Amino acid sequence: MKERIADCLKAMKEKTPLVHAITNYVTVNDCANILLAVGASPAMCEAVDEVFEFSQIANALYLNIGTLNREQQMAMYLAVRGAAIKGIPIVIDPVGCAAIPSRISFIRKLSHFGSFSVIKGNMGVIKALAGVATKVRGVDSLDTGEDGQEVCRALAREFGCTVVATGPTDIISDGRRTYLVRNGTEMFGRITGSGCMVGALVAAFCAANDDPCLSSAAALLTMNLAGELAAEGLGGKNPGTFRTHLIDQVSLVDENLIKKRGNIICQ
Amino acid sequence: MKERIADCLKAMKEKTPLVHAITNYVTVNDCANILLAVGASPAMCEAVDEVFEFSQIANALYLNIGTLNREQQMAMYLAVRGAAIKGIPIVIDPVGCAAIPSRISFIRKLSHFGSFSVIKGNMGVIKALAGVATKVRGVDSLDTGEDGQEVCRALAREFGCTVVATGPTDIISDGRRTYLVRNGTEMFGRITGSGCMVGALVAAFCAANDDPCLSSAAALLTMNLAGELAAEGLGGKNPGTFRTHLIDQVSLVDENLIKKRGNIICQ
Amino acid sequence: MKERIADCLKAMKEKTPLVHAITNYVTVNDCANILLAVGASPAMCEAVDEVFEFSQIANALYLNIGTLNREQQMAMYLAVRGAAIKGIPIVIDPVGCAAIPSRISFIRKLSHFGSFSVIKGNMGVIKALAGVATKVRGVDSLDTGEDGQEVCRALAREFGCTVVATGPTDIISDGRRTYLVRNGTEMFGRITGSGCMVGALVAAFCAANDDPCLSSAAALLTMNLAGELAAEGLGGKNPGTFRTHLIDQVSLVDENLIKKRGNIICQ
Repeated sequence: MKERIADCLKAMKEKTPLVHAITNYVTVNDCANILLAVGASPAMCEAVDEVFEFSQIANALYLNIGTLNREQQMAMYLAVRGAAIKGIPIVIDPVGCAAIPSRISFIRKLSHFGSFSVIKGNMGVIKALAGVATKVRGVDSLDTGEDGQEVCRALAREFGCTVVATGPTDIISDGRRTYLVRNGTEMFGRITGSGCMVGALVAAFCAANDDPCLSSAAALLTMNLAGELAAEGLGGKNPGTFRTHLIDQVSLVDENLIKKRGNIICQ
Repeated sequence: MKERIADCLKAMKEKTPLVHAITNYVTVNDCANILLAVGASPAMCEAVDEVFEFSQIANALYLNIGTLNREQQMAMYLAVRGAAIKGIPIVIDPVGCAAIPSRISFIRKLSHFGSFSVIKGNMGVIKALAGVATKVRGVDSLDTGEDGQEVCRALAREFGCTVVATGPTDIISDGRRTYLVRNGTEMFGRITGSGCMVGALVAAFCAANDDPCLSSAAALLTMNLAGELAAEGLGGKNPGTFRTHLIDQVSLVDENLIKKRGNIICQ
Repeated sequence: MKERIADCLKAMKEKTPLVHAITNYVTVNDCANILLAVGASPAMCEAVDEVFEFSQIANALYLNIGTLNREQQMAMYLAVRGAAIKGIPIVIDPVGCAAIPSRISFIRKLSHFGSFSVIKGNMGVIKALAGVATKVRGVDSLDTGEDGQEVCRALAREFGCTVVATGPTDIISDGRRTYLVRNGTEMFGRITGSGCMVGALVAAFCAANDDPCLSSAAALLTMNLAGELAAEGLGGKNPGTFRTHLIDQVSLVDENLIKKRGNIICQ
């Protein structure tokens, strides 16, 4: 399995996929830089008058609703339709939908404009979207993750897509297969944008590989392994330095590192 | 006094307050990262359809008008009302109101939707808001700060809130007490976002402490001490490195550092 | 010639010009920080209700259409008119106009509101604006640059301005003089915002010097030399570290470095 995941990384780097992102203003720069670091090509096009056409020429569409204003809402309907027409993978990051229930309605409405390839969020967000009780503080999850696998599987089946729930153990499921990834670092919680960045990576991997479930696993491993290396020697402190190192390390992750250090099992 | 200020830091770290920020697009990422570094939880929710509800579940509201577009203006009216209903502290950063007088009208109009806890700006901005002649270049203050204390006291009394005017000596006044903080570094002027970041910190401290004047002093000391340590060895150059170190150092400020190195007097 | 270019840097640092930028949300923070690093004063004012007045008090206007939403479009029409009334230099960065043809129409329409001093883009963008066939991937140029000089000269004559096309060799032409700059580093392609940052620098230099063509050359040399030094020892990797070093190095570029290490010829 790790062999095939490593192949996903190789295929992504060879393709240099164009990832069209409509994402929040807080971490949009981080998303662009991590896409470049991993070997993809980011394009943050969000104008209502441009996205329908642009989404059709990109290799993947990444949508993150962290700072969803009115023009972004409209842009997302148009971009999802454009990508769907061309069969381009769509990755959804339903940030904050546990704290702001109207975002659940938005995501569900959005799904009528095109099929999602992947829904990725922290456990609180995924449970909220699935209609299961959870605990959050703002955009952060305080959910302990019980029943996480069941929730992911059910949501994956409902939307006919892959679901990724991040946490100390990341869960990736398409309703049949379920992967558990145990790499990573607590430092991800000390900077903004960890979740957004891994979402953007998921889109990059989906752009170059046919299997969204395996692509998501490859993206999670790439991010988590880079995070582990970036956190080395920081003693759980120095988030500014960690953030710089994280981008450095993402550019260095290769197939060998995934095979050697990746901690992933298939349930 | 430094004992009580150190207690403010402790209380803030224990609470992990949720800070709802509607802030400018230039430094929104810096604000989120500094809030995480200090131990708070940022949420940059600015959609007109979401803010009224969201401001009621946060522990503080931080408003910064640096890139005030039309949707943000509407969002701020709604968020101030929401926070006011629940008695949640509101911190206002009237960036650029000296250079752009229409922003003064906006801030004054906004004050009719809810009472502010703190108004924080550089000396040019504070004087402009108080209707006193000043000197600025764009968003930067060129004001030498004469009569600064009197202006802060008068503005604090007019708005019934704490006023913070940053500069070589920071002035913090609620109209009765006035604190002067002399820590800090000239490097703050060599990066964007120093003012925005300290504003966000003021909101975090107000979220966990009842006294906005003391909370503001604690936030200013935290930022200034972190800045002093971050600037060490840089010789007034290398703003990129300073910025990374600043986030690192904010995560390391503790009660002892405030007590030992804080340079604050009460007038 | 390098003597005069070095003088442009000196004049810019002495003036501390106020650069009014309406730019994309991805790299707006980078643009502000590089302007501060070089010694200019950034102001990212983009509200429709504010820009007409604000553009008249700034020393240069920088417009970048990377994430052009509807309010930004309106703001750019107003800001160009404001700047034109006062004879303030206007620098245009037509990001993405090769991939999104409607942006070409926008730029051409915008030119009827005021004369541009400089149009700066990568080779793909410049060719697209000139109506010449080219090759791009999203916002990145894949153009090999053949006929680049001719295209720049023709576009410069058409718009009556200086045209800058960035690439392995940067081309700067006002239709009569053409400069070729060969400094730089491949690392610019590994981070987001290299193009935006150099565009902001062009505006800063134009704000303090009468000759837009020479000012552009000075901005390009400043950026490229800083990039070379920032990339030293990184072995083409570690884009996170490069980005931090780049801001550091921009603050250190001086007249001697330009004279000693600048690789520029006049065709």
